[in-house]
Amino acid sequence: MKNQRLAEQVRFVIEIDKLKTVLRQNFLNDRSRRENTAEHSWHLALMAVVLAEYAPQPVDLLRVIKMLLIHDLVEIYAGDTFCYDVQGNLGKADREQSAADRIYGLLPGEQAAELMNLWHEFEANATPEAQFAIALDRFQPFLQNQQTNGGTWRIHNISAAQVLGRMAPIQTGAPALWPLVEAGITEGIAAGYLQP
Amino acid sequence: MKNQRLAEQVRFVIEIDKLKTVLRQNFLNDRSRRENTAEHSWHLALMAVVLAEYAPQPVDLLRVIKMLLIHDLVEIYAGDTFCYDVQGNLGKADREQSAADRIYGLLPGEQAAELMNLWHEFEANATPEAQFAIALDRFQPFLQNQQTNGGTWRIHNISAAQVLGRMAPIQTGAPALWPLVEAGITEGIAAGYLQP
Repeated sequence: MKNQRLAEQVRFVIEIDKLKTVLRQNFLNDRSRRENTAEHSWHLALMAVVLAEYAPQPVDLLRVIKMLLIHDLVEIYAGDTFCYDVQGNLGKADREQSAADRIYGLLPGEQAAELMNLWHEFEANATPEAQFAIALDRFQPFLQNQQTNGGTWRIHNISAAQVLGRMAPIQTGAPALWPLVEAGITEGIAAGYLQP
Repeated sequence: MKNQRLAEQVRFVIEIDKLKTVLRQNFLNDRSRRENTAEHSWHLALMAVVLAEYAPQPVDLLRVIKMLLIHDLVEIYAGDTFCYDVQGNLGKADREQSAADRIYGLLPGEQAAELMNLWHEFEANATPEAQFAIALDRFQPFLQNQQTNGGTWRIHNISAAQVLGRMAPIQTGAPALWPLVEAGITEGIAAGYLQP
């Protein structure tokens, strides 16, 4: 290919296809199979479009969406780590940074830097955009667990306190959704699929 | 839920999970399985981020991405129609409009209208944003067919002329990608996985 820049970009486009083969713990709402990280990222990006009004302060929606589209790309090489797996989360940061260098490194310099920065911004959870994006990233599997009668909560005997802790960023990033989290937890305990 | 608006939005968010179970004809690059429409939509949205510079005139990238995230939602009820299936494409427009009424109708009025309009804009292929989005929607499965030694081309005995016709919108929406299409077709014929 004569155009080196375009060749690098196409290489990246081909490589990210692999995110479709990374499986998360969560199940689809119809319970037919576990969710993969690519479709999860699509779901979050579209949630950002529909739920943007619940960011507690105005956010740059394009930046939120870009962040959500790329936030889990590192899993292509680093794999998905179950959020309640304390052991598995040790060393996760180093593993993911190496993966980020590798995947973003496929792109031309300034694009690699832009996406790497967006990923760091997301991970740092410090800007309104990142906080809103993270809130959605927590809320989506919450809904899936509700829709599947407890899903991964039931399988792994997760407690209400663990879920409350995991969902806490929603209070900052999308506080209007918090009552749904509280109601869902109460319901989960009552139905017996969430440990009290 | 006290908040009727939020309840409608969450209903939509839950319903669109079904797009993950709609299978397209194309295979993933690793050939492990067919691609579903949700992960396809994610791929396109991220391609728009990375390849935005190849839109022949400046585009509103947020609008392009929104369009790509929602462009195939109708398949939840209307199913995916193989692009080279002439019979199957009869009546497709009516089928998809009914599906659009149903899926977007879950949302509050002005959001339903916004997304429905974006979908119509995409289908009409008339604005620079739609033309760029459609070019990506054609280019992505093209790359997959290349990566899988012909993929669906081989299975369905597709000819170079059919592929050229299908890819034609790339000449308008992302002309810089066209040489890659031409080279890929030549390569496919030479390798015997595309009918000359």
